[in-house]
Amino acid sequence: MSGNSIGKLFSVTTFGESHGLALGAIVDGCPPGLDISESDLQHDLDRRKPGTSRYTTQRREDDVVKILSGVFEGKTTGTSIGLLIENTDQRSKDYGKIKDRFRPMHADYTYQQKYGSRDYRGGGRSSARETAMRVAAGAIAKKYLQVYCGIEVRGYLSQLGPIAIDKVDWSVVESNPFFCPDADKVADMEVFMQKLRKSGDSVGAKLTVVATGMPVGLGEPVFDRLDADIAHALMGINAVKGVEIGAGFDCVDALGSAHRDELTPEGFTSNNAGGVLGGISSGQDLIAHLALKPTSSILVPGNTVDIEGNPVEVITTGRHDPCVGIRAVPIAEAMVAIVLMDHFLRNRGQNGNVQSTTPIIPAEKP
Amino acid sequence: MSGNSIGKLFSVTTFGESHGLALGAIVDGCPPGLDISESDLQHDLDRRKPGTSRYTTQRREDDVVKILSGVFEGKTTGTSIGLLIENTDQRSKDYGKIKDRFRPMHADYTYQQKYGSRDYRGGGRSSARETAMRVAAGAIAKKYLQVYCGIEVRGYLSQLGPIAIDKVDWSVVESNPFFCPDADKVADMEVFMQKLRKSGDSVGAKLTVVATGMPVGLGEPVFDRLDADIAHALMGINAVKGVEIGAGFDCVDALGSAHRDELTPEGFTSNNAGGVLGGISSGQDLIAHLALKPTSSILVPGNTVDIEGNPVEVITTGRHDPCVGIRAVPIAEAMVAIVLMDHFLRNRGQNGNVQSTTPIIPAEKP
Amino acid sequence: MSGNSIGKLFSVTTFGESHGLALGAIVDGCPPGLDISESDLQHDLDRRKPGTSRYTTQRREDDVVKILSGVFEGKTTGTSIGLLIENTDQRSKDYGKIKDRFRPMHADYTYQQKYGSRDYRGGGRSSARETAMRVAAGAIAKKYLQVYCGIEVRGYLSQLGPIAIDKVDWSVVESNPFFCPDADKVADMEVFMQKLRKSGDSVGAKLTVVATGMPVGLGEPVFDRLDADIAHALMGINAVKGVEIGAGFDCVDALGSAHRDELTPEGFTSNNAGGVLGGISSGQDLIAHLALKPTSSILVPGNTVDIEGNPVEVITTGRHDPCVGIRAVPIAEAMVAIVLMDHFLRNRGQNGNVQSTTPIIPAEKP
Amino acid sequence: MSGNSIGKLFSVTTFGESHGLALGAIVDGCPPGLDISESDLQHDLDRRKPGTSRYTTQRREDDVVKILSGVFEGKTTGTSIGLLIENTDQRSKDYGKIKDRFRPMHADYTYQQKYGSRDYRGGGRSSARETAMRVAAGAIAKKYLQVYCGIEVRGYLSQLGPIAIDKVDWSVVESNPFFCPDADKVADMEVFMQKLRKSGDSVGAKLTVVATGMPVGLGEPVFDRLDADIAHALMGINAVKGVEIGAGFDCVDALGSAHRDELTPEGFTSNNAGGVLGGISSGQDLIAHLALKPTSSILVPGNTVDIEGNPVEVITTGRHDPCVGIRAVPIAEAMVAIVLMDHFLRNRGQNGNVQSTTPIIPAEKP
Repeated sequence: MSGNSIGKLFSVTTFGESHGLALGAIVDGCPPGLDISESDLQHDLDRRKPGTSRYTTQRREDDVVKILSGVFEGKTTGTSIGLLIENTDQRSKDYGKIKDRFRPMHADYTYQQKYGSRDYRGGGRSSARETAMRVAAGAIAKKYLQVYCGIEVRGYLSQLGPIAIDKVDWSVVESNPFFCPDADKVADMEVFMQKLRKSGDSVGAKLTVVATGMPVGLGEPVFDRLDADIAHALMGINAVKGVEIGAGFDCVDALGSAHRDELTPEGFTSNNAGGVLGGISSGQDLIAHLALKPTSSILVPGNTVDIEGNPVEVITTGRHDPCVGIRAVPIAEAMVAIVLMDHFLRNRGQNGNVQSTTPIIPAEKP
Repeated sequence: MSGNSIGKLFSVTTFGESHGLALGAIVDGCPPGLDISESDLQHDLDRRKPGTSRYTTQRREDDVVKILSGVFEGKTTGTSIGLLIENTDQRSKDYGKIKDRFRPMHADYTYQQKYGSRDYRGGGRSSARETAMRVAAGAIAKKYLQVYCGIEVRGYLSQLGPIAIDKVDWSVVESNPFFCPDADKVADMEVFMQKLRKSGDSVGAKLTVVATGMPVGLGEPVFDRLDADIAHALMGINAVKGVEIGAGFDCVDALGSAHRDELTPEGFTSNNAGGVLGGISSGQDLIAHLALKPTSSILVPGNTVDIEGNPVEVITTGRHDPCVGIRAVPIAEAMVAIVLMDHFLRNRGQNGNVQSTTPIIPAEKP
Repeated sequence: MSGNSIGKLFSVTTFGESHGLALGAIVDGCPPGLDISESDLQHDLDRRKPGTSRYTTQRREDDVVKILSGVFEGKTTGTSIGLLIENTDQRSKDYGKIKDRFRPMHADYTYQQKYGSRDYRGGGRSSARETAMRVAAGAIAKKYLQVYCGIEVRGYLSQLGPIAIDKVDWSVVESNPFFCPDADKVADMEVFMQKLRKSGDSVGAKLTVVATGMPVGLGEPVFDRLDADIAHALMGINAVKGVEIGAGFDCVDALGSAHRDELTPEGFTSNNAGGVLGGISSGQDLIAHLALKPTSSILVPGNTVDIEGNPVEVITTGRHDPCVGIRAVPIAEAMVAIVLMDHFLRNRGQNGNVQSTTPIIPAEKP
Repeated sequence: MSGNSIGKLFSVTTFGESHGLALGAIVDGCPPGLDISESDLQHDLDRRKPGTSRYTTQRREDDVVKILSGVFEGKTTGTSIGLLIENTDQRSKDYGKIKDRFRPMHADYTYQQKYGSRDYRGGGRSSARETAMRVAAGAIAKKYLQVYCGIEVRGYLSQLGPIAIDKVDWSVVESNPFFCPDADKVADMEVFMQKLRKSGDSVGAKLTVVATGMPVGLGEPVFDRLDADIAHALMGINAVKGVEIGAGFDCVDALGSAHRDELTPEGFTSNNAGGVLGGISSGQDLIAHLALKPTSSILVPGNTVDIEGNPVEVITTGRHDPCVGIRAVPIAEAMVAIVLMDHFLRNRGQNGNVQSTTPIIPAEKP
């Protein structure tokens, strides 16, 4: 029944419900000696935090994380790290009215059937609120990867509903409320989101996560492949319905002669593989895309059944994001970082040591 | 470093290289009492077997599987099941010429860098030949799911290069060499594949796997979600670059009001979720799509480097499928069955027992 | 590197150092519907609590546990349970003087060498203080086993230094400060402990844990045997140096004809096996013994080296138990309960269902 | 239900029954580049092999192991290693008569109850014959540890029934049929075993395994401690009922002042800890003892019940060891080697790297 842990050598286990007393995580396997403090974790938590713009839920959570163990005199000790975020804003009254009915596209129905009961307050454990701990844990992985491996994990919004980006300019990603890397699309997105909010509806989104500075050799064929573990980690994020590595579904209609990434002494000529060959990192950038469905909690009335199976109407009046995809950028980064950290630890000091291998060719052609 | 096992309660561990002595697997966790014989496994192995049509590799492998343990007097004993397939056709000479050069889009380069050496014969462990054991192991899961859970796992080819299907007629899937469920497209596919073979090129494909008769309640939030484990299992198949559950990437441009699957006393009104809500099966059909890249081994000359990093040309003259996607249908079915079997065992006998729960509503609206 | 989790389906992950902010645990896999409250956990925590008698450390810790998640309206929800105990009494000054020297028989030296640094305050993570969370988590397992399986897990002190018990009377175990089941030995133990305390020395102990109401069928050969998992769990308790199942080391000098437990229609004639045959529970009482070494922290001066390897003398002036074995009784019970709970969940609903199997013979001969 | 795997990074999964077609194992996680051949494995298999002296079963098994994958041009590739031993001597007729009755102290009864059926031929999966694959897999670990880590894992018989050894002379261990390290006891053991054989009875034994050349730092507190994993691995061997690390149960009656291993610039003054402090290796020799019960299959008639629960008499006329402990020496070595290998891989390349750490003091005082 257990299923709240991820990772083999670097493992993250979480607990906590949307309206419980607190959210928590145990990060196990972080090597000793990493300089880490609460502020390192808070940065990404703030990027995910609700209520930061009028395009996200107005629920107010400070999401202040405490490190309870595993760090001594500013450095990790190599023992398990305990993390805690206390829930402050718990307007349970918002949720009483959906106590006995199942919100369409939510986990209400499946939780009720699986467990025979459920914490209906804000979705309980099924709420995306749980992902705050993934972001906190992921921040530790991100810092370790950056300091010790030179790996940078970053993400952006590649499509908001019908609005797809045309270019990627990392410098603008953090300077707009959408994590949009294309400055020319931000205005359209704002207009679209305002209309959407008025209509009480919601929309889906597509995100992209990129890891640069990748070593060659991460990933354990045949089942613990790097791409397989990335897919597991990203599909495990609330509302995600699709995952692609590199060219993804575009490869369906491609010819082998055009699709293949050729090798030259100066590097690969392209990166349709998304940085993974045979389940092992190639040294090229790791590129993953994910699709998130529209927020299920909307003001538009819908049909459902109650706990007895009688037809009822449901309107979700809680405070929700019109597009959950936007705030999912730091979550997706965190999940990718957790997977990379795990695979890095599984490979350290090996023959074909990912730390010491000199790549036969550089990653990218200039 | 280990990574050749999948599953927690129903686990499959495999070994074997393309041109080694044999392929093998250990299936651990199958409950006792299941009627099983080699012929039950052989059926799916024959569906995957190369050389069955002129659209697949002409390499001849009988792929005769032997059950070495775990079955006594025709029934599983509950102990580990040992499976073995001896390699018969091993034309290693085909591969000598690529011993020192890396085939583009293959795992040659990453295996060499990760391990410091590699079995270059037909790709060694990275060859799709390894998937024969997944199919054999999956056949045990498929039979158990069918007999004890009423779950049927089936797959089909939903797109071959540019040719997408328009309808799904299960009755024709097994009667054409493409696992194509749309009889009207088979002729086009044959023409396309003949042209493709002449050109020495290859193409990608999209597959769909559907599990019917699903119980409500399979999947362990928040990390061992059913959809996350399905994504892991399918992305771990050779050449797969994308995985979708239900509507997948189509949800990006969808509105919540249109996308949500409403509940009625007669069942869900649609299945955009693909049978999974909050990581838990809803009782609707489980629907997964996967994208496979074009075969990397093609006759069209390409650029690469040798083991010293010098530029060289490569032509793969071995016997290969012009579209690996076709034969991957039974492999994808097997992986989905292995995941479902594992989650079924994790849920048996629980409060909210997936065996005993009476769904509040039926799965599908008539 | 990770190693702070135990259990496959019922898993417990812990964090926390002796003098950190708090201790915590995540209990994952507890089925839904179990009535549980903090008082259920507090009972065993109080049995383990220091400072309860003059035979244990005088360190004062209230060890008040909080349930932060996984319980809703008094019942477990089936999701992960977060537990927290805040450290109140942290006299770090006690420990400054051993900052740079390694206490003999402690983990100081190995932690320093393994991690390159260590939290020296009271042993940090290596302190037995960490076991408080095992007791809290084990209390959940104990209650579930009692309510749903009719399994009772209890322990007692079978030997304190040279004083071995002659009989087991469960009714007196909780009524003396030693968990001694032989009322006639309590006075001797008091005298012995007073002398010991005056001498500033410490002594070892032997404990016994018994699980009654065992079903037949728990344990997964060949590696996840019930006895193997019990041995793992008990040897993993601080200071434990030996584990026995049933007759244990007495079987070395025994003849097969005398040692074997014969089966009769009325039950087994003896229980030298300790309730496990072939790694699977037989339905007889599960009986395990464990040996705990003398407390390493004593007032008797000893030789050691400092962090530069120079010879130094060490005296541990902190507040310590003269016999750690005494307070380990609830810890050993908790570890056995956690293992039994895990194996129970792994077997529910199986063919040969441990819940439904009617034993061919009763467990014990009247 | 699965339970036939051991190890996290170096994992061994086995299959096979006493009288099935073959025994097999998959060794996953062995780093690439290790020179290994079947003869390396055969050596230990021959040490375990039955029929080598008149003190062991006369069953004849050549136990010829085949390496089916994972080794290319004489070196491990880093991929999974498939091992196979075909059963040659299968006198099933020997076992027909115990088809319907349960041999006392055997797994017959628990297998029947757990699985609802059983392979009664020679105990099927519960037979010690399964341990042949552990020895084969362990031989790979032993060689890796020796070549890359300088760790030597060896064992001996420390007590045969009432005959305990007085000294350990490694040079004689392999030169007598008992793995006895005390030449002066061999004659007594021969006399004792001849009497025992005539009486048709059996006896227990105590074994000791020692690992020399240990690095400091192996073991992952708090649950994956080195001693806990050793206990798990040794208690999981057929017939083992007790495990000790270092002084083991002798510590119960010891005083802390006398028991502690003091540190000096020249090394530890003693090794009561058995080479493990706080679950982490100290660099001293790892010392483990295990107790094996008398062979359950004896010629002395005994009472039991049949499958209907009726009282019956049983005599085991199969060919069995009068003392299973003797042949268990290579099995115990293998299990310790597998655990050490797993922990070595978990620690490579870490801060506090077990490969690079310079111990502050040497392991032993001269």
